[in-house]
Amino acid sequence: MISRVLAADLPSHVGEQVRIAGWLHRRRELKSVTFLIVRDRSGLAQVVVAAPGESGPSTAHGLPEETAHGLPEETVIEVVGLVTANDQAPGGAELTGPVITPLSGPAAAPPFDLYRPAVTAGLPTILDHAPTTLRHPALRAGFEIAAASVAGFRAALDGLCFTEVYTPKIVESATESGANVFGIDYFGHPAYLAQSPQFYKQALVGVFERVFEVGPAFRAEPHDTARHLAEYTSLDAELGFIADHHDVMAVLRDVVAGMAAGAAERAGAALDLLGLAPPAVPAHIPEVHFADAQQLIATHTARDPRGEPDLAPEDERWLGDWALREHGSEFLFVTGYPMAKRPFYTHPDPARPGFSNSFDLLFRGLELVTGGQRLHRHADYLAALAERGEDPRPYSGYLQVFEHGMPPHGGFAIGLERWTARLTGAANVRQVTLFPRDLHRLSP
Amino acid sequence: MISRVLAADLPSHVGEQVRIAGWLHRRRELKSVTFLIVRDRSGLAQVVVAAPGESGPSTAHGLPEETAHGLPEETVIEVVGLVTANDQAPGGAELTGPVITPLSGPAAAPPFDLYRPAVTAGLPTILDHAPTTLRHPALRAGFEIAAASVAGFRAALDGLCFTEVYTPKIVESATESGANVFGIDYFGHPAYLAQSPQFYKQALVGVFERVFEVGPAFRAEPHDTARHLAEYTSLDAELGFIADHHDVMAVLRDVVAGMAAGAAERAGAALDLLGLAPPAVPAHIPEVHFADAQQLIATHTARDPRGEPDLAPEDERWLGDWALREHGSEFLFVTGYPMAKRPFYTHPDPARPGFSNSFDLLFRGLELVTGGQRLHRHADYLAALAERGEDPRPYSGYLQVFEHGMPPHGGFAIGLERWTARLTGAANVRQVTLFPRDLHRLSP
Repeated sequence: MISRVLAADLPSHVGEQVRIAGWLHRRRELKSVTFLIVRDRSGLAQVVVAAPGESGPSTAHGLPEETAHGLPEETVIEVVGLVTANDQAPGGAELTGPVITPLSGPAAAPPFDLYRPAVTAGLPTILDHAPTTLRHPALRAGFEIAAASVAGFRAALDGLCFTEVYTPKIVESATESGANVFGIDYFGHPAYLAQSPQFYKQALVGVFERVFEVGPAFRAEPHDTARHLAEYTSLDAELGFIADHHDVMAVLRDVVAGMAAGAAERAGAALDLLGLAPPAVPAHIPEVHFADAQQLIATHTARDPRGEPDLAPEDERWLGDWALREHGSEFLFVTGYPMAKRPFYTHPDPARPGFSNSFDLLFRGLELVTGGQRLHRHADYLAALAERGEDPRPYSGYLQVFEHGMPPHGGFAIGLERWTARLTGAANVRQVTLFPRDLHRLSP
Repeated sequence: MISRVLAADLPSHVGEQVRIAGWLHRRRELKSVTFLIVRDRSGLAQVVVAAPGESGPSTAHGLPEETAHGLPEETVIEVVGLVTANDQAPGGAELTGPVITPLSGPAAAPPFDLYRPAVTAGLPTILDHAPTTLRHPALRAGFEIAAASVAGFRAALDGLCFTEVYTPKIVESATESGANVFGIDYFGHPAYLAQSPQFYKQALVGVFERVFEVGPAFRAEPHDTARHLAEYTSLDAELGFIADHHDVMAVLRDVVAGMAAGAAERAGAALDLLGLAPPAVPAHIPEVHFADAQQLIATHTARDPRGEPDLAPEDERWLGDWALREHGSEFLFVTGYPMAKRPFYTHPDPARPGFSNSFDLLFRGLELVTGGQRLHRHADYLAALAERGEDPRPYSGYLQVFEHGMPPHGGFAIGLERWTARLTGAANVRQVTLFPRDLHRLSP
C-alpha cells in the first residue's frame, strides 16, 4: 500500500498517485461534479468525483465513485487518486480520479454541521457531544493553542533549570483552608482530591530547588458561573533561594512570554483561524503596589476602594486600562496584597505591616496568575496558624518539612483554561476545556 | 548583593569573591580546620572554615566563623567567600575566608545521615519522611531519571506530531470493567477517579488523530505488593489511521528509544551516580507471537504453558533471556495475546480467531508496556460487549463517539514508576514514586 500523504502536503505531490485519509468534512454536489472535502490533522483536501452516471468502474477495494456520493459527512475514508494542480482548490492542488474506501461504517450526523466556518450550536450541545463537536476546526483550534501554550510553559521553565514533577492527587488533608474539597473513600479512610500541589511543590524545593508541575486540580465549587470548574489543569511552579517575590515575578514574566511564544510558534494556524495574535509580553512587566493601585483608582474614578482587602473586578478592569494607557502593556503586576486575604503560608512584607510579598498578574484587566513568596521558617508557620486561630495539627505533615531547612522560596499557579480563555476571548471557560466538570456536568 | 553561583560552577570563578547557597550537607571537623560541604541543585561545594579560636571577626550580616561550627546539617546557608583552587576539593575549587549566613533556623536532624553515600534507612522511614529523605542524592537521582525520561517521551511524540492533552480524572463510570475504582461524592452524585484516560484518548483520536497524555491514574488496588500503587503516573498515547498494531509498536519503539535518550542526555549525572547506563533500544525490537512464545517455552523448558490465556512471570523471564540470547535485545514484543484476557475494546486478529491485535513490550523479562489496536466500528463494540455478557448502557457515552466516524486506531500506556524502577533496578516501585499511595499509605 502506498504510504499516506497529509492534506497539507498535497501541493508537493502534483502529478503523483497518492493516498490520503481523513474525515469526510463536506460533500458538495454540483450538477456536473461532486467535491469531497477530506479533513485530516493537517487541514483540508479537495477530491473531485465525477457526477453520477459518469463514474468509471469500481476497483477491488474501493467504492465505485457513485457510491461515494451517498457517504454521510464525518465518515472516515481513504482516497487514492492523482494529485492535480488547481488554483481553486485548497492549497492549489486536488485529487482526481479517486478510488474511495470507507474505513468505518457511515457516520451518524453530528449535532451540527462541522463544515460551516461558524459554530452554529450552543454551549450545552457542544459540551454534551464534545467527542464529535471538538472536531470543528474553530473549536479544535482553542485546544491547539492550549497545548502549544503548555509546551511554551515547559520550555521556559526547562531553560531555567526547573525539574518537572508529578505529585499525588489523593491527599490526607486539604492544604488550603476552607471547604470546597471532594471527599473520597480511600480503602475505608477519608481522603480528599488535591486542590493544588502547594504542599508538594514547596517540599520539593527542598529536593530540587526549582520545580514545576502540570496536572489536575480539584475544587468542589458550588458556583455555577462562566469561570468556575470542578477540575482544571494547573500550571504550577516553585523556586527556592529567592530574595523576595520579585524573583518569582521575573520567572513568571519569562514563563508567560514563553507561553505566548509557544502559541505563536506551534499553533500559528490555529491563531490565524481564530483571527488572533498572541499577546506581546513586555521585557519588564509594569508593577503597582496594591495600596498605590487603590489610591490611583480613588484619585481617577468616582469610586474609592481604599480600605478594601482585595480588588474588585471593576478595579482590575480599570487597572488593565491604566496599564495599557500608561505603560503600553496588556500585563500588570499588582503586588503587596493585604495579608488578610492571602493564604496562611504567605510571606509578609517585612517593611510594610499588614501587606504581603505576594502578587497577582493581571492580563487585559483580569487576574490571570496568583503567586508570591511563602513562609520558610517553621516558627513562622506556627505563628501564622496561631494568629488565624487554626489548629496546627492537621498541618503537621505540611509543617514537618520546614523543620529540616528550607530556603526562602515562592511560586505561582496558572490555570490553563483561564489562560486559554483570555487568549482566545472565550466568554466561558468551558469552551476551552476538553471535557469540563462542573456543578451540573460529569460527562462525557 | 553579588549574584549566586552554583556549586558546579565554582571552578570557573577561581580568584573571585562569590556567593553560594544551599543546604549544609556535611560538617567535617578536623583538628586545625573544619570543612562545610554545601549542597545545591548542581552538586556539592567545599567551604573551609578556620578552627575555633582562629576565626576572624564577624560581619554585619554573617556569623562569626566559630558560630558556623555549631550549625546542624540540613541548615540552609548562604556563604560568601573567595574561590580558591584546591585539587583535593570537589571539582578542584573551594571557598575560603567564608562569611556564613543561615537562611532559616537550625535544621532538625534528618531521619538518617543524608551525606553518607549509601542510604542507611529502610523504605518505611524513607517514605514517612519523604520531603527530607528525597534530598539524599541517590534517592533524588531516581526522580531526575524519571523526569528526564518523561521529557524524552514527550520529545519523541512531539516529533511524530502528537498533540498533548489533559483529560478529566473525575469520571461518571469506569471504562475498564472490574472493580478497583475509587468512589467520590460529586456534588451528591456518585462518580469515580479515572483508572486510565482510555476513553478520552480514543475519542480525541477523532479530533487530533494523534494524542498523548501524562497524568495520574487511580486504582483502588487491594494488593500490598512491591509493584502496586493506588495512584501512578500514566504515559498514554493513541493514534489513528493505522493498518494494525504494528504501526503502534513502531511508535512505541521510538518512544522508548526517546525515553532512554532523554535519561542519558538530561540525567547523565544521576545515571552515573547510580552506576547505570540507559538501555540500548534496537532499531527494530524483536517480536514473537504469543502462541509461538508458548511453543518456544514448551520446546526448551520443562514447562508447557500452551493453552494458558496469559504469560506467567516465569514465562516472561524466560522470554527476556531468550531475546537477549537470540537477538541481543533487552526488549521483546510479544504480540497476539488471546482475546479472552484483553479488554473488550481490543481489536481481534482478523486472520487468527481467538487471538488479538495486541502486544506487550517486555523489558529485561518483565512486562513494561501494554498496547494494541482498538475496535473502531460502533457495531463491533456492541458485539464485543454482548459476547462478554455486558450491558452496553453504562458505556453509552464511550460508544457514542464510534457512531460518528472513527479511523482504525490503537495506542499504549507506560507506567512511569514501573519504567523508572526497571531502569534503576529498584526492587520496590515505591522507591521511585515521589509520594506513593497504597493500601496503607496516604501521606505525606
